[in-house]
Amino acid sequence: MQNFTSVEDINDLQSIIKEALKIKENPLAEPDKGKGKTIGLVFLNSSLRTRLSSQIAAQNLGLNVLTLNAAQEAWNLEFSDGAIMNGDTVEHIKDAIEVLNQYCDIIAVRCFAGMKNKEDDVNESILSQFLKHAKVPVISLESATRHPLQSLADCITITENWKEDRKPKVVLTWAPHIKPIAQAVGNSFAEWMQEMDVDFVITNPEGYDLDPKFVKNSTVIHNQNEALKDADFIYVKNWSSFENYAQMPEVKENWMLTNEKLKLTNNAKVMHCLPVRRNVELSDEVMDSENSIIYQQAKNRIFSAQTVFSEILDEISKR
Amino acid sequence: MQNFTSVEDINDLQSIIKEALKIKENPLAEPDKGKGKTIGLVFLNSSLRTRLSSQIAAQNLGLNVLTLNAAQEAWNLEFSDGAIMNGDTVEHIKDAIEVLNQYCDIIAVRCFAGMKNKEDDVNESILSQFLKHAKVPVISLESATRHPLQSLADCITITENWKEDRKPKVVLTWAPHIKPIAQAVGNSFAEWMQEMDVDFVITNPEGYDLDPKFVKNSTVIHNQNEALKDADFIYVKNWSSFENYAQMPEVKENWMLTNEKLKLTNNAKVMHCLPVRRNVELSDEVMDSENSIIYQQAKNRIFSAQTVFSEILDEISKR
Amino acid sequence: MQNFTSVEDINDLQSIIKEALKIKENPLAEPDKGKGKTIGLVFLNSSLRTRLSSQIAAQNLGLNVLTLNAAQEAWNLEFSDGAIMNGDTVEHIKDAIEVLNQYCDIIAVRCFAGMKNKEDDVNESILSQFLKHAKVPVISLESATRHPLQSLADCITITENWKEDRKPKVVLTWAPHIKPIAQAVGNSFAEWMQEMDVDFVITNPEGYDLDPKFVKNSTVIHNQNEALKDADFIYVKNWSSFENYAQMPEVKENWMLTNEKLKLTNNAKVMHCLPVRRNVELSDEVMDSENSIIYQQAKNRIFSAQTVFSEILDEISKR
Repeated sequence: MQNFTSVEDINDLQSIIKEALKIKENPLAEPDKGKGKTIGLVFLNSSLRTRLSSQIAAQNLGLNVLTLNAAQEAWNLEFSDGAIMNGDTVEHIKDAIEVLNQYCDIIAVRCFAGMKNKEDDVNESILSQFLKHAKVPVISLESATRHPLQSLADCITITENWKEDRKPKVVLTWAPHIKPIAQAVGNSFAEWMQEMDVDFVITNPEGYDLDPKFVKNSTVIHNQNEALKDADFIYVKNWSSFENYAQMPEVKENWMLTNEKLKLTNNAKVMHCLPVRRNVELSDEVMDSENSIIYQQAKNRIFSAQTVFSEILDEISKR
Repeated sequence: MQNFTSVEDINDLQSIIKEALKIKENPLAEPDKGKGKTIGLVFLNSSLRTRLSSQIAAQNLGLNVLTLNAAQEAWNLEFSDGAIMNGDTVEHIKDAIEVLNQYCDIIAVRCFAGMKNKEDDVNESILSQFLKHAKVPVISLESATRHPLQSLADCITITENWKEDRKPKVVLTWAPHIKPIAQAVGNSFAEWMQEMDVDFVITNPEGYDLDPKFVKNSTVIHNQNEALKDADFIYVKNWSSFENYAQMPEVKENWMLTNEKLKLTNNAKVMHCLPVRRNVELSDEVMDSENSIIYQQAKNRIFSAQTVFSEILDEISKR
Repeated sequence: MQNFTSVEDINDLQSIIKEALKIKENPLAEPDKGKGKTIGLVFLNSSLRTRLSSQIAAQNLGLNVLTLNAAQEAWNLEFSDGAIMNGDTVEHIKDAIEVLNQYCDIIAVRCFAGMKNKEDDVNESILSQFLKHAKVPVISLESATRHPLQSLADCITITENWKEDRKPKVVLTWAPHIKPIAQAVGNSFAEWMQEMDVDFVITNPEGYDLDPKFVKNSTVIHNQNEALKDADFIYVKNWSSFENYAQMPEVKENWMLTNEKLKLTNNAKVMHCLPVRRNVELSDEVMDSENSIIYQQAKNRIFSAQTVFSEILDEISKR
C-alpha cells in the first residue's frame, strides 16, 4: 500500500478485514513496529473520532505522532498554483507539504470539501496536492469526496455482525440535516460496499443522487420505505445535492430513521459514522436501541487506522 | 476508587496524602503501571495547570494521553436529553462519551459551571452525563461545583507545611474579582478541609455564603479581619453569589489580601489555586512574599493527579 | 549552555555545527538522554516548523513534551509588573513561568515582537520575563528580536552546501511583503553570520536598515543588484522598518527575488526560513529551482533543536 485515499489502494479487501480483526484481538502485538518513525496528522478541519482513533492506532504501533491543527496552530494555507500571495494566506500548501516530507515518514490529512466550487471538490483540490508533492505515503483522514478509514471500519463492523450464510442486504439511506454536508461518507461507503459480498442499495430523495462515479451499478431507489424492506444493515447519512452542487432541494417526506421505519427491515443493524444529529437524522429511540452498532463502528476506527498504518509501515520497510 | 469527582470518592484521606507524598519523592517509581492504557483528557474549558500536571502525571505512570479541546478541535456538543438537534450543536455529549468509552481506559473531563442556570450547575448537568454514560472510570478536572484534584493538592500542601503538634487554623477567604466566578474551588476546599484535622473557618461578605451543602457545620464569619486572626493558613479565592446565583452583590470593604491583613495572622502561609488576579485578589507583596506557598501548591497538582490515576489503575487491574 | 536565546549562548559555533551534523547522521543515537525529563513548549504565537521540529527533536532524545498554546488552551497573560489585573488578562506571566518551573526541566517559548512599542520589542519584554523568572534553562523558539534555532539551522545548511576552499559570499536580502513583519530573522541571521567564516553583506532599501546593534560592522548596500553580484548564498527575508518602527516606507524598485536577479550571482543557493509569500518575496521559479535549499533548511531545524536540547541536557546533568 503506497497511499491510502480510496478503496483502490486496497489489493484484497477480505484479507485486509481479516488483518484488522486480528489486530483488534491484540492491538498491542507489535508495539515497536513504528519505532523511530513519525506520522504527521494534519487537520484542516475539525475531528473527534478520527483524531483520537488515529493517535491510539499510532501509539499501539509505537509511531511518534505529530498533530497539527493547521489553521489554529499555524496559519491559513494557499492552495492555488501560481498565486501571488499578497492576501491572507501565509504559506503555500506545497511548501507545507515539502516541510512535512522532511519531518514525517507518513502524512495523514483531513481536508473536507469546500462546498463552494464543485470542480475543486470533485478534483480533490487539496488532497491532490498532497498526493502530488508528498514524498512519503499519504493517508486520507477524510477528503472532499471520500472517507476511506471510515469505510474500512464500516466493512469490519459489517463483517463482525454478519454470520448468516447468505449475502446481507445493506441499505445506504439519506437522512435529513440542517445544512449542506459533503457527499464523502456516502460516496466512500458506496465504493467499498461494491467490493463487499453484499446486496447494496442506495436510497435518497430525488435531486440527491450521488455522483455517478461512485454510484456505478448500485441500485438507487427514491422511495425510502421500499428500499428499507428486508434490510439487514442500514447506513444513515445526510449529504447535499451533487447535481445542484451543495444545494438542499426541498424534501417533502420525512426521511428521519425511526423505529417505525425499522419495522420494515429484517431487524436491521443501524450504522452511522458520527457525529449524528439526534432526532434529525435518526430518532433517539433508534440511536439508543439494540439495533444500533454505531459505537462499535466508532471503536473499529482504531483498527481500521491501525491496519492501514501497519500496511504502510510494511511498505516503507521494503524501500 | 471507581471515579474521582469529590472527597467522597476517597476512603481514607490521610493514607491518600501519604501515598501522594511517597509519589512526590519518586514520581518515576512505576513507569509502566499504565502501560498500554489510555487516559482521555477532555477540556470543555481552558486550562493551564490541570492540563500540564495531568499530562505529566500520566506520563510518569506510562499512560498514553489523548487530549481533546472539544470546542476548538471537534465541535459544539449538545447536553439536553431528547433534543432535536437542528441548531448549532453537532454531537450529543452522550454519543461523545460512548465513543470515549471505546477509546479510553479512563476519562478525565473539565466542565465548568455555565453560570446561567443555577439548577444546571448545582446538578452538575455535564459531569452527571459523564458519570451516567461512562463505562470507564471518570475523573473530574474541575466541574460546576467542585475541583477535587486541586483540593487534594491543597491537602498535600498543608500537610507538608504543618509540623506543629496542634491543629492549624485554616481560613478560606473570599477575594474580590472583576467578573462572576464559579464556587467550585471554594466548595471543594471546604469539603476537603472538613475531612482534615484542622480548625476551618470560611470568611466572605454578606451575600456570598457558599451553598450550605458544602458549608455544613463550618464556621462562617462575615468580618474578614476577625476571621484572619491567628490563622496558620489562608486560602484566597473569589466566588460569585450562590444565593443570588452568579451575581456580584456590592461589597464595601476591601477584601484584597495585603501584608497589612497578614499581620493579623499567625504569620500564615498563603494559598491560591491560580490563576490569580494580582492586586485584585491579593497584592503583589503577598504573592511574592515568603508566606506564599502557591507555587508549591501548583507543583503538588502533579502528585495529586498521579495519586488518583494510580488508584484508578489499581481499581482497573482488579476488574 | 545555560539558556539558548542568541548566538552568545554558544561557545564554539564550529563545534556546535559539527555536533549537529553528527546528530543528523544518526538522530536516534541517544534515545534515553532526556528520559524522565520534560520540556515545555509554550507558544504565544503560531508555529509550524518550530512546533513540529521541536517535538521531533525532543522525542529523538526521549524527552517528554508538553505543548501549550497559551491563548487558545489557557488564557490571556499579563506582562506588566505591578499591574492591577482588573482587565482581560487572567494570569500574570511571572506566575505562569513559576508554575512551568515546577513542571518542566526545560522551558522553550515563542514570543513574537508586538510591533507596537519599539522599546518593548527591543528590550524583549516577554522573553526577558522568562529569563528573569525561570529557574530552569530557557530556549527561545523565536523572540521579538531573534530566531536563534533558525539561525543555527541556517549555519548548518550553509556548511553542508559549501565545499570550496574560499569564503562564500552570503547576502541577506530584504524582500517585499504585504504587512509589517518583525526583524527577528534578519537580526539573528546577521548575528550568526558574523560568527561564520563568510563574506557577509546585507542589502535592503533605504529606510529598512536593521538595528545597528545587529548590523555591527557588516556591509550594508542599498542597491540589491550590486549586493547580489557573485553571491554564493542569498537569504531572502522581509522585515519592516526599524528606524520608523514597524512602518513600511514606500519602496520603488521591485525587490522580489527572481531568476533574472539570480543571474547576477555565482549560481547562488537560495535560502528562506519559511513561511514564504510566493511571488511576493520570491518568484515560483526561484522557489522551485535547483538553487533553492529552503526545504533542506527546514529539515535542519530538527537537528538545530536537537543539538541545543542535547547541550542543555548535558548542562542539567552536571548540576
